[in-house]
Amino acid sequence: MEVRIPKRALAEGLSILERIIPSRSSNPILTYLPIELSDQGLILRGTNGEVDIEVKLPAEIQGSGQVLVPAQTFSQIVRSAPGELVELIFGQGAEGAKSAGERLELHSGAFNTQFSTTSPDGYPELSFTVPGSGAGAVETIAASRLAQAITRVRYAASTEEYRAIFRGVQLEMSPAGLRSVASDGFRLARYDLPMQLQTRKLVIPARSADEIVRVFKDAQGEVAFAVGEGTLTLVGEAVRMSVKLMEGEFPDYARVIPQSFVLEATLTAEALRESLKRVAVLSDRNNHRVNLLFNNGKLDIDAEGDYGRGREELNIDSSGESQLMVAYNAQYLIDALVPIEGAVRIKLSGPTSPSVVQAIEDTGYLAVVVPLRV
Amino acid sequence: MEVRIPKRALAEGLSILERIIPSRSSNPILTYLPIELSDQGLILRGTNGEVDIEVKLPAEIQGSGQVLVPAQTFSQIVRSAPGELVELIFGQGAEGAKSAGERLELHSGAFNTQFSTTSPDGYPELSFTVPGSGAGAVETIAASRLAQAITRVRYAASTEEYRAIFRGVQLEMSPAGLRSVASDGFRLARYDLPMQLQTRKLVIPARSADEIVRVFKDAQGEVAFAVGEGTLTLVGEAVRMSVKLMEGEFPDYARVIPQSFVLEATLTAEALRESLKRVAVLSDRNNHRVNLLFNNGKLDIDAEGDYGRGREELNIDSSGESQLMVAYNAQYLIDALVPIEGAVRIKLSGPTSPSVVQAIEDTGYLAVVVPLRV
Repeated sequence: MEVRIPKRALAEGLSILERIIPSRSSNPILTYLPIELSDQGLILRGTNGEVDIEVKLPAEIQGSGQVLVPAQTFSQIVRSAPGELVELIFGQGAEGAKSAGERLELHSGAFNTQFSTTSPDGYPELSFTVPGSGAGAVETIAASRLAQAITRVRYAASTEEYRAIFRGVQLEMSPAGLRSVASDGFRLARYDLPMQLQTRKLVIPARSADEIVRVFKDAQGEVAFAVGEGTLTLVGEAVRMSVKLMEGEFPDYARVIPQSFVLEATLTAEALRESLKRVAVLSDRNNHRVNLLFNNGKLDIDAEGDYGRGREELNIDSSGESQLMVAYNAQYLIDALVPIEGAVRIKLSGPTSPSVVQAIEDTGYLAVVVPLRV
Repeated sequence: MEVRIPKRALAEGLSILERIIPSRSSNPILTYLPIELSDQGLILRGTNGEVDIEVKLPAEIQGSGQVLVPAQTFSQIVRSAPGELVELIFGQGAEGAKSAGERLELHSGAFNTQFSTTSPDGYPELSFTVPGSGAGAVETIAASRLAQAITRVRYAASTEEYRAIFRGVQLEMSPAGLRSVASDGFRLARYDLPMQLQTRKLVIPARSADEIVRVFKDAQGEVAFAVGEGTLTLVGEAVRMSVKLMEGEFPDYARVIPQSFVLEATLTAEALRESLKRVAVLSDRNNHRVNLLFNNGKLDIDAEGDYGRGREELNIDSSGESQLMVAYNAQYLIDALVPIEGAVRIKLSGPTSPSVVQAIEDTGYLAVVVPLRV
């Protein structure tokens, strides 16, 4: 059993797994990295109990089999290997060696390592099956668009224990498209990508959603996916992923999105965001309150706290009422602006009822921010 | 009272003070920033009780006086100011304002702030006097060389409570030069810079030494200095600094530097350092033990721990005994190599007695590392 592989390819493969393989675990075998040699290539796996990942790397391979090596140590060694090529040799431990079982040698340049390995017997079975037949053809989505749909709304997911379902990102699939939604009860983000999918609804834990983004955001091509038994399986070109889903679904959030507005204002998202950041430095530390006075083509932003008062005026295009004052948690409004490039339209339904934040260019994006009480 | 100053200059001045001004303190006034306007320029000060710093910034100034503003908030605001110029206006608080006392306004572009200020009365008096007459002329040293002398040895200072004096960097001045020394009892670093100084010995707390490096490492020109009443005062062009010294001096460390050697080896410092880092990944976690076998023009480095064994061979130029095995804490040896560019000479006095590490080019540098027991 032997593998020859460019150091860089192996290090990149490991970097995908490193974040999910725990450095400590009540089940210590999960801190190990299963390395499998097959005619398909060099296969690396890992799981944190919520997310399973498998990475397949093309390599020059002789033989087949599987060992477990300590994941963190193995990654460190690969990253620091002096040569451009890494050679792995699997074999029996030398007699009298510390571990008499399986052995893995790594050679690179003048540097040689022998790893103690463990039998893969106790390692959980990871499954990444996407049925290719049955009810319908395999569904696919462009890897980068899946990552985009999650990224645009991720910020609005809750971090509170309360109403646990809001700690996830909901994906709603239908023949009209893919809709992603996140909310913490005080704000909401929604993103629509037109495409044709079977109708289903699923909620991905926000942290697992982050892993999906990390793995697929720069990936080329399509990802095949399947949902079954509380699991979403994603199969890309080099990476397969299996993610535990949350039970339940979001309460009816559509009713918090206002449909009629008393004032609409358009300005550059970045200018508003930067201004809010500046003014918010002086806002009170508890609710980061900033006051926005929409006033005849001007937007006056101000905040006051223990250390003083900040104020800035921006030009806006506006329609509807000539004057309206609304207060927000500055951070919530800033978060809602981050996904927007170019211009933003802010639509106010009143001084204390929810406001809508929309991108002018990327029409799929919509956010709702609830103002602070006066 | 008004100041106009480029945002960048003000932000740079604040960045020098930010690290020492505490964000919380049992004496809350220390979290404030004293801003003084004088005909000398805009003067900013700060102290953490161990290190006092004063920064003088050239600016367009009208009037004179002093106020205290909340340091952290003020820095944040200046950094985020939208304009290239920042205007500060000092005045009385408006009637009915939250704070009726002194007031500071900051204007930049369309952004305006009013800070609550505090009277400077309770702020400790900071003194940065270097006597210009008396026993001798003012002594000076190039700012960059002072920083260099500290940087080369700083790593060897202790972090343990035990033998507190070793938590400092000792500077020994004499007509022969400036010698800096740091040690934690297991290793020692010494650096010599030839120059002519009055004879004195002082010990700077390692953390305060870091601040001296931070402030002066990129500074041009000379720093005037004076020692008095347990304080080292440093006066640069734009920055004045006052540092509390430690009491006492290092025990006689010269006796741990061996004078005769059984083997000397020369090789590239970087190659040795990188090799040690790789091999040490597999060393045991407690003492990071690596074994170095010097063997007829070869250096064999190996380490063994719970996860396996690593090994690498390097070529060396050597003289003295043909073979010798020495074990070190890998981190100690790596640290000793960091200040060395180009070639290093390792001089062994025996398998368990101290080794000397010297730079071939920068002859002022010498380190002592004590081997681990076999």
